[in-house]
Formats: sequence, structure tokens, C-alpha cells
Amino acid sequence: MSDYKHPHQDAEFVLNELVGFDDLCAANGFDDINFELASAILTEAGKLGSEVLAPLNVIGDNQGVKLTERGVEETAGFKEAYQQFAEGGWSSLIADEEYEGQGLPNVLCTAVNEIWQSANMAFALCPLLTQGAVEAIAHHGSEELKQTYLPKMVSGEWTGTMNLTEPDAGTDLAAIKTRAIPNGDHYLITGQKIFITWGDHQMTDNTIHLVLARLPDAPAGVKGISLFVVPKFLLDAEGNPGVRNDVKCVSVEHKLGIHASPTCVMSYGDKEGAIGYLVGEANKGLAYMFTMMNCARQGVGLQGVAIAERSYQQALDYAKERLQGTNKDGSRFAIIKFPDVRRMLMQMKSATEAMRALAFVGAAEVDRAGRAQDEADQRRHQARLELLTPIVKGWITELSQEITYLGTQVNGGMGFIEETGSAQHYRDARILTIYEGTTGIQALDLVGRKTLLNKGEALAELLAEIEETVVALSKHEGFAEQGAALREALEAGNNARNWLLENAAQDPAAAGAVSVHFMMLFGYLCGGWLMGQSALRAQTLLDAGEGDPEYLKAKLVTAQFFSEHLLPRTKASLETILKGSASIMALSEDQF
Amino acid sequence: MSDYKHPHQDAEFVLNELVGFDDLCAANGFDDINFELASAILTEAGKLGSEVLAPLNVIGDNQGVKLTERGVEETAGFKEAYQQFAEGGWSSLIADEEYEGQGLPNVLCTAVNEIWQSANMAFALCPLLTQGAVEAIAHHGSEELKQTYLPKMVSGEWTGTMNLTEPDAGTDLAAIKTRAIPNGDHYLITGQKIFITWGDHQMTDNTIHLVLARLPDAPAGVKGISLFVVPKFLLDAEGNPGVRNDVKCVSVEHKLGIHASPTCVMSYGDKEGAIGYLVGEANKGLAYMFTMMNCARQGVGLQGVAIAERSYQQALDYAKERLQGTNKDGSRFAIIKFPDVRRMLMQMKSATEAMRALAFVGAAEVDRAGRAQDEADQRRHQARLELLTPIVKGWITELSQEITYLGTQVNGGMGFIEETGSAQHYRDARILTIYEGTTGIQALDLVGRKTLLNKGEALAELLAEIEETVVALSKHEGFAEQGAALREALEAGNNARNWLLENAAQDPAAAGAVSVHFMMLFGYLCGGWLMGQSALRAQTLLDAGEGDPEYLKAKLVTAQFFSEHLLPRTKASLETILKGSASIMALSEDQF
Repeated sequence: MSDYKHPHQDAEFVLNELVGFDDLCAANGFDDINFELASAILTEAGKLGSEVLAPLNVIGDNQGVKLTERGVEETAGFKEAYQQFAEGGWSSLIADEEYEGQGLPNVLCTAVNEIWQSANMAFALCPLLTQGAVEAIAHHGSEELKQTYLPKMVSGEWTGTMNLTEPDAGTDLAAIKTRAIPNGDHYLITGQKIFITWGDHQMTDNTIHLVLARLPDAPAGVKGISLFVVPKFLLDAEGNPGVRNDVKCVSVEHKLGIHASPTCVMSYGDKEGAIGYLVGEANKGLAYMFTMMNCARQGVGLQGVAIAERSYQQALDYAKERLQGTNKDGSRFAIIKFPDVRRMLMQMKSATEAMRALAFVGAAEVDRAGRAQDEADQRRHQARLELLTPIVKGWITELSQEITYLGTQVNGGMGFIEETGSAQHYRDARILTIYEGTTGIQALDLVGRKTLLNKGEALAELLAEIEETVVALSKHEGFAEQGAALREALEAGNNARNWLLENAAQDPAAAGAVSVHFMMLFGYLCGGWLMGQSALRAQTLLDAGEGDPEYLKAKLVTAQFFSEHLLPRTKASLETILKGSASIMALSEDQF
Repeated sequence: MSDYKHPHQDAEFVLNELVGFDDLCAANGFDDINFELASAILTEAGKLGSEVLAPLNVIGDNQGVKLTERGVEETAGFKEAYQQFAEGGWSSLIADEEYEGQGLPNVLCTAVNEIWQSANMAFALCPLLTQGAVEAIAHHGSEELKQTYLPKMVSGEWTGTMNLTEPDAGTDLAAIKTRAIPNGDHYLITGQKIFITWGDHQMTDNTIHLVLARLPDAPAGVKGISLFVVPKFLLDAEGNPGVRNDVKCVSVEHKLGIHASPTCVMSYGDKEGAIGYLVGEANKGLAYMFTMMNCARQGVGLQGVAIAERSYQQALDYAKERLQGTNKDGSRFAIIKFPDVRRMLMQMKSATEAMRALAFVGAAEVDRAGRAQDEADQRRHQARLELLTPIVKGWITELSQEITYLGTQVNGGMGFIEETGSAQHYRDARILTIYEGTTGIQALDLVGRKTLLNKGEALAELLAEIEETVVALSKHEGFAEQGAALREALEAGNNARNWLLENAAQDPAAAGAVSVHFMMLFGYLCGGWLMGQSALRAQTLLDAGEGDPEYLKAKLVTAQFFSEHLLPRTKASLETILKGSASIMALSEDQF
């Protein structure tokens, strides 16, 4: 089991130097918010994460959850931790003040969320899902639904869930079969949903389910899906939980990781039908889901940063403590002295910093797009947000697999032993490239909706911006090599974009076949871009005698490492992209 | 849970076309053995693997093992399966006829072993470790030790273990503390050993431990380690198990994977000292271990092939069955139609074939080096064996992580659910880059003993041989692109070799810092070399109208895929190698 300490210097460096937090607040109407406040919030969150949530992480992994007659029983200690979390106001950071939220910028909430996800990913999924449900109701629900449900969800008194998947409808939501029958002022919902995260528990006295279902006269496919609010307990006249609704968890999955997060099979309407309330208009459920997708997907990308950071901290502790080399005089030294162990730790550190940079920069676009003062600005930021989201989700979560793998590898034989703690991070991380849209889905989104649909415009703007960093690096004597490396990666990005625009129309399989390499290429390129910016900022601060010189000098090294060890992957990706779909599609199904 | 079917066509293709099995047998004194016999043996092994061992794989994962008063109780059903295995003569394939073995070529035993490791890796570790113990006694033990122990270990009546690691002595065996005190015709052993695979169980009526320990007057460090035979039950006058020796398993580890393989903490000499018998000469224990290292490490490399194959088969079944796309007419299709799912399956298939090719080619060098008819031949094959071993172990097991990862990814959400079976393969695979020398140790072996020590001679010979394949591919119109790609990879290999020879002396951290990239580069290069040869052989057979055309045409595609999608990684590796150790070693320990 490993301790956790929030890497506040790096989080604050990214907020200040890459996001421009104070400017973002000033330009987007966050009038009372500034970096000083943000830093204080992060410090407090760091304490709760380290002291309360992190120690429960291994307990949750060992004990998991169980389904009893009462429903799902969460891990012992989680209820008390959740109450502390809610009472501290941590569930209300992002929500509108209208619903008793604190209205903080998304990028700050993202920085805070990293702490929860590092400390205890299984726990932190519960408020993350609740936040998604709050957004759905806030954006699309009637005034009555909002007033009825939001304040208590925002305060953390109730939690929320998202019910999309069914046994035959995963990625392909067109196949949803759950039915909703109109019945007076409400609907009766019948059907089964699977993979429902925190679908049931005893931590709060109500859970508000958001459920996709079909009305009787709904068109086939994705255009016939509606969204409903289905509370676990129906509310009485005072708005308090009363009679139990006809919905329950019928089983929990036995999973590879995140054992403390109950993944439920939910059954709606075993008796008379679960009472639900339509959100917004009929048949627009999937569109409503799409409006929340950027935040949800970026949230999972952030989990990749968080689990990589936790795994890195564990591996680093082990590498400093484990004596396994013998000096000539017979004394022993720790394995961190070995160059290959260093290589692994540097890979973990450098990649995690790049991932954090991209996650926060992507999160800031949510603020900028949502609050832009003029239309051109809004369009520009919305396009960037849409473009970055699949990269944040896809690239970061894929890279987090490698980082948590290296975390166990640094531990040697102990890495395979569960008590060491590293294996849990490795197992927990494994869900990240799967849920909230697999890597393949992110990649398809990037090549399709985010690139081909706008003829590569959004990507061209990003590439032009990256070029500015190339120029700035190249001008600076100390960063000429990094500038050259970023330029080569940029060329790879340009070539990949051009290839896709030229070939997608001729070959229907081309975009899908190259998509994951395409997404990974742009992930590494964005990482190199932001690490290049980081190096320039760190040098400026060092030259000015500002900031912590040890931290800033280390940043120069992690940026150099990224440029030397991770950026070259863009060229290998490009090479496979240029080969197109031929060898991927050549076999008949029987030849596999 | 997934079925397993031995990919006999591919195994036989590699044996025939890449290894040249009949020529190998003829040239190395395996007089009664030919491909026809080999094929029959593989068919029989395939049946036992599919029908008996594979169904126990998931049961072993779920039930694991437990330590009771009797000692370690293996998973229910394993004892019967083990008896079937031993009675079928499967434990005696490789051993000398002198000890009632069958004396089959190592490369054939390797092909058979793939079946056991695919079917049930946790189970198959038991005979694999026994084989190591048999080799140690056969090569270094006295005639009396051989006659006493080998026949029953070869027949499978008894199993064997290897006891090297101690809590403070993992990679660094210099730190071994276990003591051996002379006491008449035997020694009394006292100490604790950890990570002892199949250290105890109830499947057989004796277990023969091979134990590294220090004599009282032994020199410090690695030159003071001796090797002992320590039976679980001492033998009576008739050579049958009698009195219990003073050795027992005191706990079993709770591991990420291979749950059915007991990983034991073994305690020697809690009472009067465990009775042990010296193998060979005093203080030569570590040297004896090194003589077995090639086979042991290649054996783990083979496990990488095996688990990748099993994971591929599971993913392929799922991809063909899982309906998750909707046609315009509302009918549904399986996910194997999606280009990105194809990409993952092709990556799995192509990589696994390349891994198998290298594993078998490496295994054949054991036969050729061990039985060469003249000294020059012997030296040449021994050098190649030594060179290939860390690549077989290091590259294959690293790549097996990616393949089993993709296996779970193809399963989408179901990949994270334990019942699906894919997650077990992913977890089981995780040990492979750790035990029998981590990836870092393999890589250090490759750059150090296998390259710098002979001034790059062995590598130069391999590179020259690869060039022949480049030339053959380039001459053939249909393979010109593959030839060009292999040539570029070959150049990367040459450049990496030259860089290492030039830089290792100046910078003491250089070899270690670049070692893993160096090893991975040569792994992909060897894979490309053997897949290139495979393509040429497949085309020749197709042109001649021989063999199964569907299989051979598929081989052309997997070779092309390897060339397009995996070979480019050599260039990214080279690029990082050329950067040396600077950014890897720059941080102080406090800056991490």
C-alpha cells in the first residue's frame, strides 16, 4: 500500500503557466476567483485526499462491495468518507450558484478532481457520475426537475447515475430496448441496464438515475431514445425520499479493478414499472447525452493522469527504498541508481506531466467555450474543445496503461504481489481505455466528426498554434534540439492530416483503420507541444529568479526527456498511417 | 472462459520452413526423429491441452491454492490432470534416455511446451520448473545424485523447484544468506527462500528442491554460493520417500495472476536444519545456475507466445460473436467487421506469429549448439544462442503485454469483467517480464555480456544473416516493399550496435540507459527478419502448389502487416538510443 501526496507544484505550474488561470478567470466572468484561491482549494483538497480517501483505496480493493437484501453495501468506511467529502462542500464546486453550487471554473475543478481520482479512483467515480447527472438535468431538465433534484445532488446529499448500456447495446446505443410508457404526469420504465457505476449503495438516502429508454411510438435507432429521471426513492410532498421506486440492483460485476466501485446490473420495472420523469423533449435523449460527452470523456482522461501519478509515486518510493545493488565495499544501494530504473521513472514522470498539461488545457477550453464573450471566440474554443476531447480521453488513458505497467515493473517481483499496491493501480487503470467510449471510439470521433467533417480545419488551427511553439523553441539556443524534434513531430501531424483528407473518401476502411495511430500521433504531438511550452516558461522563470529552481530545473529535464523518448513515436505512427488499411483488411474472417 | 485450440499449422510451418526440422534432426544425431513424428506428438499434446488442461485454467484462477496443515493444497482437479500428464510421458520428452527420458530435440519440446503454457500457464509452470531442476542435476550432479533423483523426476513421479531468491537477494544474488553446514555425508541448510514456484503441493509424493546457499567458509558475494539438492521427504534405503525433511512452505503469495501456481515462502531448517546434498563443487552454484539460464529464459519467452496466442483466440471468438453494429436494414453485424477491431486482431495475430517464429528459432539453437559436430559450428551456434536468449525472453514477454492488453480491449466492457476470461490472460501475462530476470536484466545481458564483451561480433553475424533476407525479399517483386522496410530496420540495428560500441566506454550509464530500447529494437528486427523469411517460404509453397493455400496466403498478409505496423518501431527505438543517457540521468534523486 502506498501513500499519496498531491503534486501541487506541477498542478499549479500548469494552471499558471500553460492555462493562464488568472487571465482565464478575468476574461470569462469568474470575478471573485483567482490563483491564490485556487491554490488554497488545492491544498485543502490535497489533505482530504491524502488523509481520508487514499488510505481507503487498498481497503476498497480488498473488500470490494456486496449485494445483500438491502441492496449494494459499499466498502466499510466509504460512507463516512463520503459524508466528509459532501460536508466539505467538495461535491458542489462546479455547479451553478443557482443550485447552490460554487460556480468554480471547470479547469480548477479538474485540478481538484485529479486529487480524488489519484487518492481513490473507485470512490471518486461516485461524485464524478453524480456530476454528469447534475449536468444532464441542469442543461435539459424542466425548471421543476431542476428545483426538485439539483440542490440535493449538488450538495452531495443524493448521488446520481447514468444508465445507457444494455446487454445488446454498448457502443451501439441504437439497439436500446428499455421502454417508457406514458402514465399521467410520469412514465413507467421497464428494462435492464448494465455497467451502471455506483448504481446502488447505502452512502446517501437517495440515488437519482438518469435512464435512456424508448417511448412506445419512438422511431427506430438513435433518433428514438429519450432521457428520464428515475429516483431510487420517490419523493414525498416535502421533497424527501419516500416510497421505494420499482428499480433495483440485481447483481454486481466481478471486475479486474476498481473493486470498490459497484458496477451494477439495474432492473427497472420488475413489478408495475419504475416511475420516471422525462428530461427535456421526447426522442432527444442521445443528443442530450452528447452535450455532456466532452466533460465526461475529459473526466476519464483525467483519471488516466491521476492513476499514472499514483503509480509513479508508489514506484518512486520503492525505487528509493529497495536496496538491491552491492558496492565494492559490500555496502548496498537503492535501485534508483540503476540507469534502467531511472529510465522507467523518467518515462513515468515525464509522461504524467505531459498528460496533466493536456488534461488541464483541455479542461480550460470547457470554460472558454462555455463563457466566451463573442461568437468568434466561442466557435474557436468550442472547436478546440471538441478536437482535444478524444485526444485527452484516448491518448491519456492509453498512455496511463504503459505508465502503470512501468510502475509494477519498477517493483520487480514485488510488483506482482498484491500487497505492494502497485498491481491495484495497474488493474484499476485497465478500465480507462474502455468505458466512456473505448479508445477505438475516441479515435473514430477524432478522424470523423472532429477532422473529416470540418475538412481538417480544427486540426489545421491546432497545428498552426503548435508551430508557434516550434518557432519559440528554435529561437532559443538551449531548446534548439527540442524545437527540431517538435518540428519533425509537427510535420508528422501535418502529413497524417493530409493523408486522411486525401484518402478517406476513396477507401471506406481507411479512416477507421488508421484512427488509433492517428489519435496517438496527435496525443504525443500535443504532449510535446505543451512540454515545449513548459520548458520555455520554466526557463523564463529561472532567468527571472522566480519560482522554485529545483522544480523548474526538473521540468527542463522532463521536457527534454519527452522530446527525446516520447516524441519519436509520432514518426512510427505516421509510418503505419501511410500504409492505410490494406494489410488490416486483407484477411477473410475465416483466415483469422 | 475461452476454449483453446493449438495453432498446429503455424507451429508446423515454423518448424518446417524456418527451423528446418528434419535437417536439424539429421545433422545433430536425432536419428529416429523426423517431422512426421513431431507432428503426431503435437497432435496428441494438443488434445491433452485442449481437453484436460485448458478447462482447468479458469478454475485455477478462481480457486487458487491454499496453505493448510498438510502444506499447500493445489486447485481441485490439478492432481488428476498432473497424473494424466505424467502417465502420458509428457514430462520426459527432453531428458536423456539415460534417465529414462525420450531425448527429443529441444525445439520440438518447445513447440509442445507452447501447448501446455497456452492451455494452463499456472499448471505448466510445475513441469517447467521440474525440467530446470532435472537439468541442474544432470549437468552438474554426481552419478549418485543423478541415479537417485533423475529417473523419478523425469517420469514425473516427483517434481522439482528452484530456490534462488531471498527477501534481500533478488536480482542481486550476491546477497544470499541461506547457510549450509557440513554434517557427515550431507549438509544442514538453514534460511528462507521466497518466490518459490510450486514450492509445495500434494500432486506427487515428493518434491526435490534445488537450493542456493553459502558454506561457512565461503567467499563473500557471488563466488561463495553453492547448490544443494534438498528433498521434501528424505529417501529410505529403497529410494522411496520416507521421513519428512526440515523444510516447509510457510506462506503463499497473493498475486496478480497465475493464481493456481503456488508462489511459496520456503523455510529451511526451522528445527535441526534441512538435509541437503551438494551438487558438483562448492562455491560454483551460481555458475551452475547460469548454464541453465538459456533454457529457463527461453522457456519464459515461450510463455509470452503462449499467453498471446490464448488471448488472441479468446478475442477472436468474441469479435466474431459480438453483434454491435447495425446495418441500414436494422440487422446487426459482428464487431470483427470494424476496421479498428481488425487492426487489433491483426496486431495480435501477426505479432504472435513473429514471436513464435523467434521462440522456435532460438530453441533450435539449443539443439545445434549442444550437438554440433565440429568446434567452429559449436562456437557459432553457442554465440547465436547466447545472443538470442535475452531477446527471446525480453522482447517476446514485453510484446505479450501489449497483445494481452489488446485481447481485453477487443472485448470492450466485457474485457474488464473477470468471467469473460480475457482479464485472466492479461493478469497472468504480467509476471512474464518480471521473473527469470526482469526485462531490464535481459536488456543488460544483451548490451553487456552478449554485445560489448565480444565487441559486437555476435550481433554483426546476426545482422549479416538478416541482410540475406533483405536481399532475397528485395529481389522478389512482390516483396520489394517488405525488403525496403526490413533494410531500414536493419540499418537501425547496425546504427544502434555501432553507437553502443562507440559510447559505452565513455559514459558508464550509457549501456544501461539505452538497453531496453536496444533489446526491443533487435526484437522487432528479428521478428521482421523471420516474418520476411516466412513470406518468402509461403510464396514458394504457393507457387509450387504445396500446402494449405488459405493458411499460406494469410501468412503473406501477417508478414506484410508486421512489416508495416511493427517494424517502424525500430526507428523510434533507434532515435531514443542515439540520445544516450543524458536526460535519463540528469535529475538528482530529490528532484524525482
